[in-house]
Amino acid sequence: MPGASPKGVIGVQVTHILAAKGDRVATIAAGATVAEALAELRRWNVGALVVSPDGARVDGIVSERDIVRALAGAGAAVLDRRVSELARTDVVTCRLTTAGAELMATMTKRRIRHVPVVEGGRLCGIVSIGDVVKSRVDELESERDQLSDYITTGR
Amino acid sequence: MPGASPKGVIGVQVTHILAAKGDRVATIAAGATVAEALAELRRWNVGALVVSPDGARVDGIVSERDIVRALAGAGAAVLDRRVSELARTDVVTCRLTTAGAELMATMTKRRIRHVPVVEGGRLCGIVSIGDVVKSRVDELESERDQLSDYITTGR
Repeated sequence: MPGASPKGVIGVQVTHILAAKGDRVATIAAGATVAEALAELRRWNVGALVVSPDGARVDGIVSERDIVRALAGAGAAVLDRRVSELARTDVVTCRLTTAGAELMATMTKRRIRHVPVVEGGRLCGIVSIGDVVKSRVDELESERDQLSDYITTGR
Repeated sequence: MPGASPKGVIGVQVTHILAAKGDRVATIAAGATVAEALAELRRWNVGALVVSPDGARVDGIVSERDIVRALAGAGAAVLDRRVSELARTDVVTCRLTTAGAELMATMTKRRIRHVPVVEGGRLCGIVSIGDVVKSRVDELESERDQLSDYITTGR
């Protein structure tokens, strides 16, 4: 189709998603309490925090779901626990060149909603399932606009 | 393209997503406590509960995010509150014929992750952002398989 962008041809990659949403990542220290993690989740308005001592190394990830499930099991005492007690350390990560479709498949198959982006051993972004859906919506709207232009202008 | 299914031509609808995941919806009474809601979220392994007196009428929706944000603000006292104090009552719903692409756009624009399906005033399913992504992954894999068949068999 005329006017298709290179992005459209090769497919959306993680680098395009980060260009749209930014590369800021909310992190938390392993020794912080769950109550502190809840405050950070709210402050950044996100659903997961990367556990990191320096904002670069990925030691784990803790999500609002991890906290909610722990609260269901153990009650309010969870709020005083350390983040390191709840965080998962088998973190699934991706790269800047990971395809959006591959990332979607990973999220579905692993049942995860947040994937940190790591290049050269350093954290450089995070992609949520909401970011992936937003990227797909933007792509669909762009395709529709291109098709509409093509029909109305004939080029 | 030969072999394209009717679903591929008209696009995925909510009814196709429910056919794949089932129409069961986890509900909770408005008078239940937040601690009870946490237990139900865990029992059903879901991220939101529809507030309903009878499993048919939709009075509201309460998500793990709503609970996590309330906990960040008010601490453990939230666990003893009623679901009705936290639930949102301006529920965005969809129909069985709603297009998957439209549902994705709604989730992105309204920043919501769960949309109850209502037909004739009765709750008949719920679609999460994870279900939408899984549906898109299945669609991509089906397209790839059809293309692969087309290339190898020439029909």
